[in-house]
Amino acid sequence: MPPWPAALSRARGSPAISSGVTPYELIKTKREGHKLAAGDIRSFLAAYTRGEVPDYQMAALLMAIFFRGLDAEELGAWTQAMLESGEVLDLSDVPGIKVDKHSTGGVGDKVSLSLAPLAAACGVPVPMISGRGLGHTGGTLDKLESIPGFRVDLGVEDYRRLVREVRACLIGQTASVVPADKKLYALRDVTATVDCLPLIASSIMSKKLAEGIDALVLDVKCGSGAFMKRIDDARALARTMIDIGAQMGRKVVALITDMDQPLGRAVGNALEVIEAVQMLQGEAPPDYTEVTLALTGEMLILGGKAKDAAEARARMQEAIASGAAMAKLEEIVKAQGGDPRAVRDFSLLPQAKHEATVAAPSTGFVTHIDCEAVGLAAVALGAGRERVDSVIQPGVGFHLEKKVGDRVETGEPLVRVHYDDPARLEDVTRRLLGAYRIGPEKPVARPLIHERLER
Amino acid sequence: MPPWPAALSRARGSPAISSGVTPYELIKTKREGHKLAAGDIRSFLAAYTRGEVPDYQMAALLMAIFFRGLDAEELGAWTQAMLESGEVLDLSDVPGIKVDKHSTGGVGDKVSLSLAPLAAACGVPVPMISGRGLGHTGGTLDKLESIPGFRVDLGVEDYRRLVREVRACLIGQTASVVPADKKLYALRDVTATVDCLPLIASSIMSKKLAEGIDALVLDVKCGSGAFMKRIDDARALARTMIDIGAQMGRKVVALITDMDQPLGRAVGNALEVIEAVQMLQGEAPPDYTEVTLALTGEMLILGGKAKDAAEARARMQEAIASGAAMAKLEEIVKAQGGDPRAVRDFSLLPQAKHEATVAAPSTGFVTHIDCEAVGLAAVALGAGRERVDSVIQPGVGFHLEKKVGDRVETGEPLVRVHYDDPARLEDVTRRLLGAYRIGPEKPVARPLIHERLER
Repeated sequence: MPPWPAALSRARGSPAISSGVTPYELIKTKREGHKLAAGDIRSFLAAYTRGEVPDYQMAALLMAIFFRGLDAEELGAWTQAMLESGEVLDLSDVPGIKVDKHSTGGVGDKVSLSLAPLAAACGVPVPMISGRGLGHTGGTLDKLESIPGFRVDLGVEDYRRLVREVRACLIGQTASVVPADKKLYALRDVTATVDCLPLIASSIMSKKLAEGIDALVLDVKCGSGAFMKRIDDARALARTMIDIGAQMGRKVVALITDMDQPLGRAVGNALEVIEAVQMLQGEAPPDYTEVTLALTGEMLILGGKAKDAAEARARMQEAIASGAAMAKLEEIVKAQGGDPRAVRDFSLLPQAKHEATVAAPSTGFVTHIDCEAVGLAAVALGAGRERVDSVIQPGVGFHLEKKVGDRVETGEPLVRVHYDDPARLEDVTRRLLGAYRIGPEKPVARPLIHERLER
Repeated sequence: MPPWPAALSRARGSPAISSGVTPYELIKTKREGHKLAAGDIRSFLAAYTRGEVPDYQMAALLMAIFFRGLDAEELGAWTQAMLESGEVLDLSDVPGIKVDKHSTGGVGDKVSLSLAPLAAACGVPVPMISGRGLGHTGGTLDKLESIPGFRVDLGVEDYRRLVREVRACLIGQTASVVPADKKLYALRDVTATVDCLPLIASSIMSKKLAEGIDALVLDVKCGSGAFMKRIDDARALARTMIDIGAQMGRKVVALITDMDQPLGRAVGNALEVIEAVQMLQGEAPPDYTEVTLALTGEMLILGGKAKDAAEARARMQEAIASGAAMAKLEEIVKAQGGDPRAVRDFSLLPQAKHEATVAAPSTGFVTHIDCEAVGLAAVALGAGRERVDSVIQPGVGFHLEKKVGDRVETGEPLVRVHYDDPARLEDVTRRLLGAYRIGPEKPVARPLIHERLER
């Protein structure tokens, strides 16, 4: 009874995948920390998507990748293989350099809602496939759907047409795009291999590249409300995605932006739409405005519509001042079946039944807002999903009257809560009070944009 | 589209196993390098054996264990859970301290064939469940079956009876013993998690403990013909198994013995039976004799039949000189259906059809024999299995005329080859010539017993 028959193991494994290497050999190579050949990665992932490699072998490989990582070349091949598993949208007949923005997710992150019309108004075609709220973070699709009639389930042909005609289209993922990612994600979700940098990066990038983009701006959030709490992790994710972009011949610029407190003052679907409209009218909170302008500016430069940040800034200011950005928003809403009047008359948007105020328990300065806790409070209120089949209440949410650094007196409103269900108010109030810290000293402001990275 | 929904992942995983923790949590805990609770390990393995935990979750856990290991307590729980998956043989009605020996496998390792009758002749009951040849190593069951009529497929009742009446019984594993190991081994074999120390150690120990033993002597082989080529690896495996024994309340002693060249001079099933008989008559090569006496001596001490090595040595010499050891071998062979005359009259054993000699290509000293290459040459000759369904040719094998340190003249026989199939001779001769190194200097002898370990 020898402990392990190495020679037999190899012989007994599943048949070789098309590149000649067996799944066993591929897993062992990665486990030992050696480099996988690009062709082997593509054959393995293709065979897995076709159901010819069983889940247990993929699970073992994913865990080996968790420990050993993937280098830039391997990541390129992995992402390419993901991409090849499904349909890659072809926007080559749409004139211009198509640029999208991707955010790693945060609380109050309504950037896409203002960025897409602003970039499109400045001449950049924006093909944008977005997601739903997940965990404590909101989702662009949920926010858009709070506009009456707005449809995010357009087919590929409509998507292509709107990118061409309107220069912006915001839809959800279709089943034909990167099916390998859906299958892999479901497996990662039950094998504790979700929070693995190369797998996160290749999942994001394969879905973005399948949109038919030429270039991409990444908004990597960092802070208490982000999935990346630490700047090092945010930087590593940004670099990994930039590397993948380079491997795939796409220009990628990343901004690491602050998510240590909610962005802007509105948290909740319809409330965030209102704030996004205000941004396009030059009336939104400065932090949200600044992050949107920084990200949209990068899109203008990548899209060849501005030679530098200053020129991009000027063009955006002009689109806002002239009303072109608002007009583009109305055009997008109308093109996707929504009621364009709702972005001028907010009474046409869903509204919560009740309003309440959470008052400051002491006097001083807001020193910290636990951003993830605010996001989870919003989910508890009904603004997000506690389970995958939960129904969102589009009108509910928060308006943060005080943000970090603001002076506050005892009894002054900290947060206005828009709610439907009175039974949820007490829990949500307690969560919000727990999220705020008030102290005697005005805290040092965190930068809004921590870093800018490109290859 | 946030990168990973950690909260949802946990919620979406499979239902909790009976201890309350979900498979997802268990995998993640190990992945992060934290300790698994004994109860969780036992629930998880039990659920896996019942088919309630899918292979892909076990595959992810096994790979996480490959990277993170299992500590002594975890190993105890893991081994206990393996044991609990099937029948644990109860030998409590057999008087005396039941002691077995386990070898990690080597080439020419016929120790069990002489050790079992010798220990039994000295009064130690030996319940021994052995394995088949695997890879380049031979298997005790294959060797025993070269004795005409010898049966290794006895049922549990016969096994129990023979341990009591004969004080030794050598059989193969039954389906009812440690079924979790069979299922796990098949999964490890295709997910590149076979060569993982804690999984090897718990697999071996669970099978040994299921035999109903009170104590165990481990023969951990080390050298070019062993699975552990390096002393550090051999020591780590030995320590791990000793730790498991301690966790399970069993005394375990390990000897790390040399396997840098074949043990003794005979390689091949019937040829090794002959050499084992010669050992019991005091006429075997000194290396094989010494390793057998050292291991059997440990059994005598553990079994309470000798107070120290010197007394054990004296008792064994007496059993050999008096013929008691040979009589015990005959008794075992007869009890298990074999022809006892075959151990006195070797013409009753299977014999190869042909004999050839591999001659020394130069003059000097044998400086090295690549032991794994000799094992693989024996397999190529038909003494082992190239595939799981290969049929063994029991009479074929080698007699090593020269071993490491021996002086040799050009043209003198290095190896006598006993073969059935002339078509295989050329390949086997080439392999053997490739395995021998002849040089001008007599090499420094390696120790036969590298280390002795106990808790």
